[in-house]
Amino acid sequence: MTHVISAAVAKTPPLKIVIVGAVAGGASAAARARRLSEDSEILLIERGHEPSFANCGMPYYIGGEIAHREKLLVAPVQLLRERLKLDVRTRHECLSIDRARKTVRILEVDTGKEYVETYDRLILSPGAAPLRPPLPGVNLPRVHTLRNLSDADRLLAASKAGGRAVVVGGGFIGIEMVENLLRRGIKTTLLERNPQVLTPWDPEMVSAFAETLRDRGVDLRLGEEVTAFGELPCGISVETSAGDVLEADFVVLAIGVRPEDDLARAAGLAVAARGGIVTNPRMQTSDPDIYAVGDAVEVRHVVTKETTRIPLAGPANRQGRIAADACFGRTSTFRGVQGTAIVGLFDHTAAMTGLSEKACRAAGIAHEKIYVHPAHHAGYYPGAERISLKLVFDPQDGRVLGAQAVGGAGIDKRIDVIAMALQAGMTVFDLEEAELCYAPQFGSAKDPVNMAGFVAAGVVRGDQPIVHADQIEELVTAGAYVLDVRTPAEFARGAIPAAINIPMEELRARLQELPRERAIIAYCQVGMRGYLATRVLLQSGFDKVRNLSGGYTTYRQKFAAPMLVSPAAR
Amino acid sequence: MTHVISAAVAKTPPLKIVIVGAVAGGASAAARARRLSEDSEILLIERGHEPSFANCGMPYYIGGEIAHREKLLVAPVQLLRERLKLDVRTRHECLSIDRARKTVRILEVDTGKEYVETYDRLILSPGAAPLRPPLPGVNLPRVHTLRNLSDADRLLAASKAGGRAVVVGGGFIGIEMVENLLRRGIKTTLLERNPQVLTPWDPEMVSAFAETLRDRGVDLRLGEEVTAFGELPCGISVETSAGDVLEADFVVLAIGVRPEDDLARAAGLAVAARGGIVTNPRMQTSDPDIYAVGDAVEVRHVVTKETTRIPLAGPANRQGRIAADACFGRTSTFRGVQGTAIVGLFDHTAAMTGLSEKACRAAGIAHEKIYVHPAHHAGYYPGAERISLKLVFDPQDGRVLGAQAVGGAGIDKRIDVIAMALQAGMTVFDLEEAELCYAPQFGSAKDPVNMAGFVAAGVVRGDQPIVHADQIEELVTAGAYVLDVRTPAEFARGAIPAAINIPMEELRARLQELPRERAIIAYCQVGMRGYLATRVLLQSGFDKVRNLSGGYTTYRQKFAAPMLVSPAAR
Repeated sequence: MTHVISAAVAKTPPLKIVIVGAVAGGASAAARARRLSEDSEILLIERGHEPSFANCGMPYYIGGEIAHREKLLVAPVQLLRERLKLDVRTRHECLSIDRARKTVRILEVDTGKEYVETYDRLILSPGAAPLRPPLPGVNLPRVHTLRNLSDADRLLAASKAGGRAVVVGGGFIGIEMVENLLRRGIKTTLLERNPQVLTPWDPEMVSAFAETLRDRGVDLRLGEEVTAFGELPCGISVETSAGDVLEADFVVLAIGVRPEDDLARAAGLAVAARGGIVTNPRMQTSDPDIYAVGDAVEVRHVVTKETTRIPLAGPANRQGRIAADACFGRTSTFRGVQGTAIVGLFDHTAAMTGLSEKACRAAGIAHEKIYVHPAHHAGYYPGAERISLKLVFDPQDGRVLGAQAVGGAGIDKRIDVIAMALQAGMTVFDLEEAELCYAPQFGSAKDPVNMAGFVAAGVVRGDQPIVHADQIEELVTAGAYVLDVRTPAEFARGAIPAAINIPMEELRARLQELPRERAIIAYCQVGMRGYLATRVLLQSGFDKVRNLSGGYTTYRQKFAAPMLVSPAAR
Repeated sequence: MTHVISAAVAKTPPLKIVIVGAVAGGASAAARARRLSEDSEILLIERGHEPSFANCGMPYYIGGEIAHREKLLVAPVQLLRERLKLDVRTRHECLSIDRARKTVRILEVDTGKEYVETYDRLILSPGAAPLRPPLPGVNLPRVHTLRNLSDADRLLAASKAGGRAVVVGGGFIGIEMVENLLRRGIKTTLLERNPQVLTPWDPEMVSAFAETLRDRGVDLRLGEEVTAFGELPCGISVETSAGDVLEADFVVLAIGVRPEDDLARAAGLAVAARGGIVTNPRMQTSDPDIYAVGDAVEVRHVVTKETTRIPLAGPANRQGRIAADACFGRTSTFRGVQGTAIVGLFDHTAAMTGLSEKACRAAGIAHEKIYVHPAHHAGYYPGAERISLKLVFDPQDGRVLGAQAVGGAGIDKRIDVIAMALQAGMTVFDLEEAELCYAPQFGSAKDPVNMAGFVAAGVVRGDQPIVHADQIEELVTAGAYVLDVRTPAEFARGAIPAAINIPMEELRARLQELPRERAIIAYCQVGMRGYLATRVLLQSGFDKVRNLSGGYTTYRQKFAAPMLVSPAAR
């Protein structure tokens, strides 16, 4: 290892760079541009009061977990100016772009004054705005959205006043807001028009989230949406598609975002039909001197290879770096998004990466799936919590397409590991061989990632024919025999209808009880004994046997979900 | 996704398989063999009282964290017999192998009776035995080693009796034993002959472990080894190389293990000169009908490509599966080990994967290293703990060679992610682009893995010339100027000798104070401002500037270590 003291750093010709939007992508672009070019003039234009605030922290600020507002100001104006020599202009808004003249028209919000700035390179990081559908009363002051710190301040004040709230939308922000409103003692209703919360996940993976919400006292209404808001003397009414009228002190509207692509569109830049500024992998728009990054941009999905929009902070930050690189002629490229995401609800966590089963289906991608339910660390060490892990993969070559995990501890770790595998284009055979940290308080000699790999690889190799929970009814109707190989005690606590209980330990001695001509679905609690039973039967001349992937645990998760759909249960 | 109900599973011709050793590798081989072949005869020969016990849990059983002994029996005899139809013979020992006749001679330990078994395939999983060097008194009854549950029972009894203990060896088992003896209130001395504990790690990465040990009241003696044990009326004396005589109630000897390759050697199988049964990637020994797995086997390191011995539970389990596959003609192969490991000491964690810096140096592998010290989750969310992460990589192509991390929470996750990257042959440029889980309680938009990637990629690209803590003295002697760009308050709390403090915020205005002709070492607290300062200076005509990787934090970790070497400090 040698270090030559003369570092031949080519001096980059200075540019004037105007960056519109100073949160994740814009702030990252500005910092990177400064490091690349000390002499460039870098203007950072921000409509809001603060640049570079931690928007992902806002729900926790409202709930009081983050006690001090200034904690959210990750890069205050002072720091950006003094440390990075940036020309930061908050409460300034970019009104229009004159591409021919390479100028932008800027409004000084507090004075109403307008002025023009020239640019050599323009980087747009306008973000995405919360959707406000054209419903009656949607603009009433008690209907809040959450985008910036002013929104957070208003919601903090409303939450501290106590009372009742209706959260509309069970996505990331909706779930995080519910958690934090509960923390403030607010009686909360959650409306989600889909039959599940957290729609990026497959429904069976988040049915436990719905249970947790109900256990915590949330009036969770799935398959129900808001139709109108109305003013009350001291509150707001929320009319729903179920015909109910809910009364609340305030509403949090969190049904999604739309990319802020109006400025780009008005300037004639290419914008996708469904919204989102079009960029190439260098984050360049259809105008080579204009770049765009962050939630306003259309990106390529690394698995489907299709364009999509997935607003995520990590990619926004990296896109900012790449745009700055491109301004100075570097050839960095953005590889696309894979949709790695995580959300917490008290001690409950859901994380995912890549494609869900339904995303595969929507994209017409051939896929298989398996479920495992291992402990997050060695089962013999105190405090082990169950992980439910679903792996989606190519049934031919075993390539990992996506993964979802839910549980308590250790969820983020397993999804991060599989995110890395997906980025590398690895297969289920690679997951089998993963060499991960093991000491009893951290993992297992066969980590949940290995376990998922073993099971999926067994499926691809044809060692383990499997069946899924949603196929059972049809198979049983067609004459399948359902074999429960758990202990009588487990069986007594709940089983699949029509299942016959022959414990694994007795199976070999009782083979004559099984029908040779019929299809057999073997299952146990999580799929391990069911796998063994399947192997025993396959080798004993029962050639129509399959193991229920994930066992009774996945079955219950699957059929917990539909029960939650029906508002009749309330 | 379609499922054909007739699974064409080829029926494997049955074999008689004898497996010697029923812990990790042997038990995995047996279970896999049974699933592959229902009709095979599978003998599992185990010298000890219990098969398949959780040896990694024993220190925590001794300390009381694992309260019930039966928790450690992960696959009791009954289960192996009834569920897997294995012929389990505990307290039976394999004495010799007759390769010509394909038989093994077995001793029934409790009766002294010997008998012969034939085999079609033999799988050796004898493990590794704790080293007992030929020191005076080494076989005194108060000198314990820890390999099986009987050892653990003895140490549990000794620990419950209280008093004083000397632990010899500061490796995994030594550190875990110290933690658990402290839990029992035992006054503990730890002797480690090397100048650092946990020798697989580089010394600066584990200096905090030494501090934690001392803070907890451990008499830690680095660079000191035992020379003799002596009997005392009610205890044991331990003489050390420093000339001290320590008195204790018992000793835990944990200085390493030697592969149990005697049986293989006696049978004429190829054994490495330094010990370890030689196998091919199918885990086949030099006799094609004999396989060997686990801690007794020599393996290939995936980074160095050299043979080595790294006793790890995960690889042992996977080798067992592979050996069983091979018995039945499958072509599974073991890819080698990468040395992923983790150890905890109360709230302190150290993990690693791949090669350390010293391992690179020993193997003559070109390498560079960087240090980062980010928070384990968003800094603005309460409870963020610092991670110190060292990344070792190829300075030419950026390929990841290894990583080490220490801190509290989130250590296992980052090393597991990098372990996956290393398995995939990924580079620091891939780490930059990793898309990992981010919500404030789980990670950061720029995860520590991304941060390490950014810094290392900057080094490989030549954007950021760096210098390391151990080079400073030489450079200063040669005339280098040391520039501290932290705040005056940070500077006042401790700085590198001879450093001049010019805060980053004032640097641009005070360039004239810096010597253009001299080498400049810039540094801050963790390396971020030092990087910015380096960029500013490089672009301002100071072409001999370099950033101290990891900043003052790494500097302190580095120079905490040597201070601990000298016994004179006591």
